[in-house]
Amino acid sequence: MDINLPDVLAEVTAAFERYELALVGNDVAVLDELFWNSPHTLRYGTTENLYGHGAIREFRASRPSSGLARTLGKTVITTYGRDFATANTEFHRAGNAKVGRQSQTWLRTPEGWRVVSAHVSLMS
Amino acid sequence: MDINLPDVLAEVTAAFERYELALVGNDVAVLDELFWNSPHTLRYGTTENLYGHGAIREFRASRPSSGLARTLGKTVITTYGRDFATANTEFHRAGNAKVGRQSQTWLRTPEGWRVVSAHVSLMS
Repeated sequence: MDINLPDVLAEVTAAFERYELALVGNDVAVLDELFWNSPHTLRYGTTENLYGHGAIREFRASRPSSGLARTLGKTVITTYGRDFATANTEFHRAGNAKVGRQSQTWLRTPEGWRVVSAHVSLMS
Repeated sequence: MDINLPDVLAEVTAAFERYELALVGNDVAVLDELFWNSPHTLRYGTTENLYGHGAIREFRASRPSSGLARTLGKTVITTYGRDFATANTEFHRAGNAKVGRQSQTWLRTPEGWRVVSAHVSLMS
């Protein structure tokens, strides 16, 4: 198993950065696109547990679009072979002292890299 | 990409259950074994962010060994091909009304299935 092949790491890093831009800009179409369109897809958010791409899409559509700006830190992206990756990052939002953490598992699909599982939380 | 091949799903489910038994029984040797022995391995816990297998091992060694019992619910294990999987579960501990969530990304290594990334949190 080849870890962090440079071309694969570059692809996943680009997908991760595209997701981050879409998140802070509330670009719902891109957020929906970058999650695997499957009932298996799962996202644990800070205040909700969402099962399936449909539930994640509904959440995005109804989410407030302000206060999304954040600063990332200690980002770790790791690729395993050519088709799998994990992306983990800490984040901070202005006015919130708690440390946020975002974990994503990425899969190469015929349509491109997609998040198959995600977990976002504030450290207790 | 074959999703949830029965034999692969059975393997990962067995590894997941072995981890759970080790966790509630504080079997530190098994917990250490089941995390990928790599500096890339990462674990976000409810109150700590741990980078690398060494930091995770130190945390296990110093963790209190009581109050670990918990009940799992809504467990979702998904396998992608033969070498990669995600395992997500909600959990509850007696005396704590908050919903816990545990996410793991598993990789098949020459030594067996290993957790390469984990995230544990309480829903806000």
